[in-house]
Amino acid sequence: MLRLALPKGSLERATLALFEDADLAVQRSSDRDYRATIADPRIAEVRILRPQEIPRYVADGHFDLGITGRDWIEETGAVVQSLTQLHYSKATARPVRIVLAVPDASSVESVADLKPGTRVSTEFPSLTRRFFDQHGIDADVQLSYGATEAKVPDIVDAIVELTETGSSLRAAGMKIVGTILVSHTELVANREAYAEPEKRHAMEQIATLLLGTLEARGRVLVKLNVSETNLSSVIQILPALKSPTVSKLFGGDDYAVETVVPKSEINTLIPALKDQGATDIIELPISKIVH
Amino acid sequence: MLRLALPKGSLERATLALFEDADLAVQRSSDRDYRATIADPRIAEVRILRPQEIPRYVADGHFDLGITGRDWIEETGAVVQSLTQLHYSKATARPVRIVLAVPDASSVESVADLKPGTRVSTEFPSLTRRFFDQHGIDADVQLSYGATEAKVPDIVDAIVELTETGSSLRAAGMKIVGTILVSHTELVANREAYAEPEKRHAMEQIATLLLGTLEARGRVLVKLNVSETNLSSVIQILPALKSPTVSKLFGGDDYAVETVVPKSEINTLIPALKDQGATDIIELPISKIVH
Amino acid sequence: MLRLALPKGSLERATLALFEDADLAVQRSSDRDYRATIADPRIAEVRILRPQEIPRYVADGHFDLGITGRDWIEETGAVVQSLTQLHYSKATARPVRIVLAVPDASSVESVADLKPGTRVSTEFPSLTRRFFDQHGIDADVQLSYGATEAKVPDIVDAIVELTETGSSLRAAGMKIVGTILVSHTELVANREAYAEPEKRHAMEQIATLLLGTLEARGRVLVKLNVSETNLSSVIQILPALKSPTVSKLFGGDDYAVETVVPKSEINTLIPALKDQGATDIIELPISKIVH
Amino acid sequence: MLRLALPKGSLERATLALFEDADLAVQRSSDRDYRATIADPRIAEVRILRPQEIPRYVADGHFDLGITGRDWIEETGAVVQSLTQLHYSKATARPVRIVLAVPDASSVESVADLKPGTRVSTEFPSLTRRFFDQHGIDADVQLSYGATEAKVPDIVDAIVELTETGSSLRAAGMKIVGTILVSHTELVANREAYAEPEKRHAMEQIATLLLGTLEARGRVLVKLNVSETNLSSVIQILPALKSPTVSKLFGGDDYAVETVVPKSEINTLIPALKDQGATDIIELPISKIVH
Amino acid sequence: MLRLALPKGSLERATLALFEDADLAVQRSSDRDYRATIADPRIAEVRILRPQEIPRYVADGHFDLGITGRDWIEETGAVVQSLTQLHYSKATARPVRIVLAVPDASSVESVADLKPGTRVSTEFPSLTRRFFDQHGIDADVQLSYGATEAKVPDIVDAIVELTETGSSLRAAGMKIVGTILVSHTELVANREAYAEPEKRHAMEQIATLLLGTLEARGRVLVKLNVSETNLSSVIQILPALKSPTVSKLFGGDDYAVETVVPKSEINTLIPALKDQGATDIIELPISKIVH
Amino acid sequence: MLRLALPKGSLERATLALFEDADLAVQRSSDRDYRATIADPRIAEVRILRPQEIPRYVADGHFDLGITGRDWIEETGAVVQSLTQLHYSKATARPVRIVLAVPDASSVESVADLKPGTRVSTEFPSLTRRFFDQHGIDADVQLSYGATEAKVPDIVDAIVELTETGSSLRAAGMKIVGTILVSHTELVANREAYAEPEKRHAMEQIATLLLGTLEARGRVLVKLNVSETNLSSVIQILPALKSPTVSKLFGGDDYAVETVVPKSEINTLIPALKDQGATDIIELPISKIVH
Repeated sequence: MLRLALPKGSLERATLALFEDADLAVQRSSDRDYRATIADPRIAEVRILRPQEIPRYVADGHFDLGITGRDWIEETGAVVQSLTQLHYSKATARPVRIVLAVPDASSVESVADLKPGTRVSTEFPSLTRRFFDQHGIDADVQLSYGATEAKVPDIVDAIVELTETGSSLRAAGMKIVGTILVSHTELVANREAYAEPEKRHAMEQIATLLLGTLEARGRVLVKLNVSETNLSSVIQILPALKSPTVSKLFGGDDYAVETVVPKSEINTLIPALKDQGATDIIELPISKIVH
Repeated sequence: MLRLALPKGSLERATLALFEDADLAVQRSSDRDYRATIADPRIAEVRILRPQEIPRYVADGHFDLGITGRDWIEETGAVVQSLTQLHYSKATARPVRIVLAVPDASSVESVADLKPGTRVSTEFPSLTRRFFDQHGIDADVQLSYGATEAKVPDIVDAIVELTETGSSLRAAGMKIVGTILVSHTELVANREAYAEPEKRHAMEQIATLLLGTLEARGRVLVKLNVSETNLSSVIQILPALKSPTVSKLFGGDDYAVETVVPKSEINTLIPALKDQGATDIIELPISKIVH
Repeated sequence: MLRLALPKGSLERATLALFEDADLAVQRSSDRDYRATIADPRIAEVRILRPQEIPRYVADGHFDLGITGRDWIEETGAVVQSLTQLHYSKATARPVRIVLAVPDASSVESVADLKPGTRVSTEFPSLTRRFFDQHGIDADVQLSYGATEAKVPDIVDAIVELTETGSSLRAAGMKIVGTILVSHTELVANREAYAEPEKRHAMEQIATLLLGTLEARGRVLVKLNVSETNLSSVIQILPALKSPTVSKLFGGDDYAVETVVPKSEINTLIPALKDQGATDIIELPISKIVH
Repeated sequence: MLRLALPKGSLERATLALFEDADLAVQRSSDRDYRATIADPRIAEVRILRPQEIPRYVADGHFDLGITGRDWIEETGAVVQSLTQLHYSKATARPVRIVLAVPDASSVESVADLKPGTRVSTEFPSLTRRFFDQHGIDADVQLSYGATEAKVPDIVDAIVELTETGSSLRAAGMKIVGTILVSHTELVANREAYAEPEKRHAMEQIATLLLGTLEARGRVLVKLNVSETNLSSVIQILPALKSPTVSKLFGGDDYAVETVVPKSEINTLIPALKDQGATDIIELPISKIVH
Repeated sequence: MLRLALPKGSLERATLALFEDADLAVQRSSDRDYRATIADPRIAEVRILRPQEIPRYVADGHFDLGITGRDWIEETGAVVQSLTQLHYSKATARPVRIVLAVPDASSVESVADLKPGTRVSTEFPSLTRRFFDQHGIDADVQLSYGATEAKVPDIVDAIVELTETGSSLRAAGMKIVGTILVSHTELVANREAYAEPEKRHAMEQIATLLLGTLEARGRVLVKLNVSETNLSSVIQILPALKSPTVSKLFGGDDYAVETVVPKSEINTLIPALKDQGATDIIELPISKIVH
Repeated sequence: MLRLALPKGSLERATLALFEDADLAVQRSSDRDYRATIADPRIAEVRILRPQEIPRYVADGHFDLGITGRDWIEETGAVVQSLTQLHYSKATARPVRIVLAVPDASSVESVADLKPGTRVSTEFPSLTRRFFDQHGIDADVQLSYGATEAKVPDIVDAIVELTETGSSLRAAGMKIVGTILVSHTELVANREAYAEPEKRHAMEQIATLLLGTLEARGRVLVKLNVSETNLSSVIQILPALKSPTVSKLFGGDDYAVETVVPKSEINTLIPALKDQGATDIIELPISKIVH
């Protein structure tokens, strides 16, 4: 019923992995196929297209639903309904940033230091022009087809570029002097489609599965046993994500407790639980979590 | 106690992965070794042999138990006891098929259209001859050593060939005009060994482990919390695979429910559970399931 | 707060994998980086160094905590506090051994057969000299820089060498005639740091996480349902690792049982459980276990 | 002395290989470096940039010399001096083509069949608009960011796309109905730089080395002996690329002949030479040829 | 004009490499294609088929020319015209051998030691039966589908197997007790086609190109300068493959000598030439040699 | 007749490639074998050993001839006869250097700036102690087992380390403040063996083959035609490596000239030759050159 556009290129592998983990596996006859299917009653058609073009195609109604970055939504100015941010990117769970960068040796330390006529190369000319307009700077913005950092300092004076960790800019001898946009991956919908209750319900269910999968990547299930005496002190140090499931152990006074906790707290939580008297603590991986 | 023959070649990797997942890991000093062991009191010896020869060797009593395809059991006519189908093949969980195929341009649309004297190349000559005899067609069946589809239309007129998805036949410009056999991987036993109660019990235990592992690949464990009000409506939409485990949450009126569901239904089930009032839904991977 | 030294080289990959599984992921800008961090309040600094040098650097107080092998602790004679053995090595969970080996054709069958003046090549000269001293043998021990087995029989008469499975010694035509040391990986501490209660507590918590992760690799969680009649016979055959968690199923007389069992017993346990009347048996992977 | 721009991306590997074979090896500290050097007195600086931008940068005088495709020279309309075509592309020695393609099922067979308002997606909008203007067709040309063939037939009706062999268009179910440009790789110069005699001489020397390397890839050196009687008939069948070098063998009446011949004629030439009485025929690879 | 069959499988890569070096490059749209072409006026069609079937298909006139092994010519008993042996195999220039092998521990040392009823597994049943008939031994010869060495000693007593170096038999704990056939790769023709003068001439030209390429792989061109005094002693130690080409150097009394020598003699020849007074010795690779 | 020791480890691949190019291919049953052979009457035995130990083993007479680095000859102080430097290393033709390096931030700029008691880590303790003794500096030199640069600045103050390009030291934030040794690969002989005329002759022949191969890597053969008028001016600009071979072309007044030139001069020589009137210039690769 829904037509879905997924991003080709640097986000492709991570997007397909997310859909597979969400039990929405994308089927293609080959890796180079642009048309795909998902065995799901809510999804009629899947197309894999450049993320630059997805905002416009969703806005124009070629697709009901699409995955793309906030960067391209802003650059194209396409009017779409954002359902949710999806916290994954090419390699990490962090957002990418579009930044203004100049050579290390430059005296420029912020956008305010840029002189009129500054030459700027970027793959995001609209976004960049809007940014300079807001700051009242008259810059010469040039479209870049890539290798943008290779053009300073002789061809252009500054660049506006996408970065995940900043390390390739650093390696190219550049420093970041301003952030134009922090860009997450987003699930976006066509406005008319989103207004239809049935389609909207289907879209929200898909968002639920994707978010539940992303959240599970950072969580684990912890199970433990504890005596009645220590029960409340153990429960007190459990993270407040959800109330723990507590049941009495058969034939005794001990309790079984289980709860979901962030992976990042496990390294301190498990020793703390042990200190509080918890025994038989086990940790299990989870694949999805929906509140 | 049991001597076991496993298939070398295209099924080898998938078979060894299945045994490892079933906690029956096959130990070899090197990948090219034909002799192996499994650290299991029921299995005395493991040999890795061509699947074509396993039916005969099991029938002749060289091995008590073997894994091979239905195709080679039929082709060799070996008399063995089949314990169970095992739903895995080279790359997927689907069976392979032995089909009759002719060039796309041929006017033949079914086996009935074949003229007497039709030349047929195949790696399964017995099976093929039997099939043509049953259909009363006098064909010239030739043994193929492989590359069978390369021989039409000048060397032979039709081929009988194994296929998993049909795509390599299509790519070779051929159409399928009949299916001779749908062939699953099978666990087969020597008849005399199977008649001994102790050996039979051991064989069935091994079948249980293998089947439990294969089934778990398509299942996940779902855990959720639900209020007393919503309990029955949540339970009603759970798949009927097994009755869910329900327990009351300590210190409240809510219930914890857990059940095993097919992976393929998760994409619709989790949103439906949420719609029915389930909260704190989590999904966990499972490695084995035995009913 | 703690400064930690991890081993570079053959143990490196397995050590980093262990720390990641223990939710103590080691962050480096590149694989060749010697300085790293762990996002954990107890760990101030991580350095990746040759395992040969870690005992001395921990003893000298350059680091509070280190991971190295018992072999290098003995060889260097460094005085460190061992917190625990960690049962993993390059490829397996087995310890490595430092052995005395001679050519297959040699008449030497044990260390007692060695003649005075026997030339021995080894990467562990101190350990080796001490061993020969204890056995009252006057050997000519030479430091080897590697490729030790290439030097027999013409350059030296015997070698003292590290081995995991013995297979590369066998392949080089050598036989093992004595074991000098069975060497596990160990977590070792600087004695002064270990004497400080706060540091000691942090060290023990880290040991708990590492041990819990290693133990979980050989364990699975088994869940099953069973009728009241069969409950005690099912519980009786469960391994005694920990007492199983038993709860009554809602609305019936059946019980849900769950327990942790060694992976190596699963192949016989699951069939046995089924024989005793257990139903709906499922097995789940676990990531950590702390008693 | 010359500043040189080389193409990043699909032509990069083939371009660097050509320069290495031409003894103009490009040195970079890493594969991702945009700045490079060539140890040659004529070349002051090397930059590796997107081929789309090289025509403009050479025209603007940022570089004296560049390698790019005729396609981007035409698309950008940059005014540069072409020194020579270089007959190599990504994978073969053949030029690429920019073609007009429509779905196989379309009734369009040539550009003349396109209806007004036809939607066309392309990475070459200027070139495409110019082409439609020349043919008097009023098309809706849209910029494509890639995956162009994925957009027919629902998003656009036709595409203008680069192709080397046509096979990926065929695989996408499209047919070529017109060729807009046959595009070779070219060595282009800034017009002012080219007007300076010294720079022009240096540019022509570099062109000589590159052309000599490309030509040698399709040639081999053939050496043979022949008696006086057969000399003229052997020489007559040699290809007329250059006059063969003939010398008399010491102490006899035989002659040694050597000449350069196209690799593609060797399969018929060597047997023919043998038929004409040539003996001791040997073939040697050559690395460069300059007439 | 000629239809050519090339071997699929273990000889495929080496055969295609040979044809490419012989300037008869085989063109396929993909590596899995059975139909191919060679841009050569003498070759109308190329098919890539199992080497087992090529002798029969050439004998039956489906192809004029084929490449296969002597082993399969003998096994099938097909009547074909052998044009030449081609000294290459899967990995080396050595022939393969079909040998009779028994377990290391067996008391059998030659075919004469085999008892009546000996069970023998082989992929070459006809060849094997003929061999035992010639030796008057009544063996039970069974067709093997592969993994032949895995069947001794319990399923069969001996095997007849193809070997290139004998190392995989040794690794399987077997010893060779007889050689049934030394098998080279051969270029074979259909007898009727070979009787036609024009086809035969074309076949011989192709044989010339293939043999010239194979021979060149073991040869290099050596060029040297030598004074008149040392000329005859230098020429005397040159290998007698062909008479060297000698020419007087312009403007002096020295001579330039060039000749083709086997690569395997270079390590002793070059030092010897230098000892005899040769100077400026250079060695060049050659790609083809035709006498 | 000669026993030869080759270096295992970082120089291994480059050394084996050099011997293969020199027609002295080293045969091993496997890549991990320490014993090898060369099919050459002068070489009785080949052993592959750590380069650190080769100087001592050659000095002690275990081997007649060895390949190792000057660094280890100096470090071990072994007394061997050096036959020749061999200009190749792990990746390039450049020598490696043993350098003194300190952190970038250090105020030390040369060895003279080091304070007494400076802690220095190195894999070359003897060499390093001798160097400091010569400079009258009292340093605390510690043996490093590797990862030496990881120890500054907290564990040691400076390091003495091997470097090929300096880039990994730079990447580790260190600067080079002194060079202790420039170390080439060398061919070294046992002194007694070298004193025997027959062995010495064989050693020198092997050196000739290795040097001829290394030299050929940087050379090509250039052939050209030239008219009588231009002959002398063409010959004048040829590099003076060897006198060119000139011969008169049959039936005309032109000359054929051939000569060997350094690859590094080709980029300027070929254009210059063309400018002087040379025609039909071709360049051929050479495999060996012996003067």
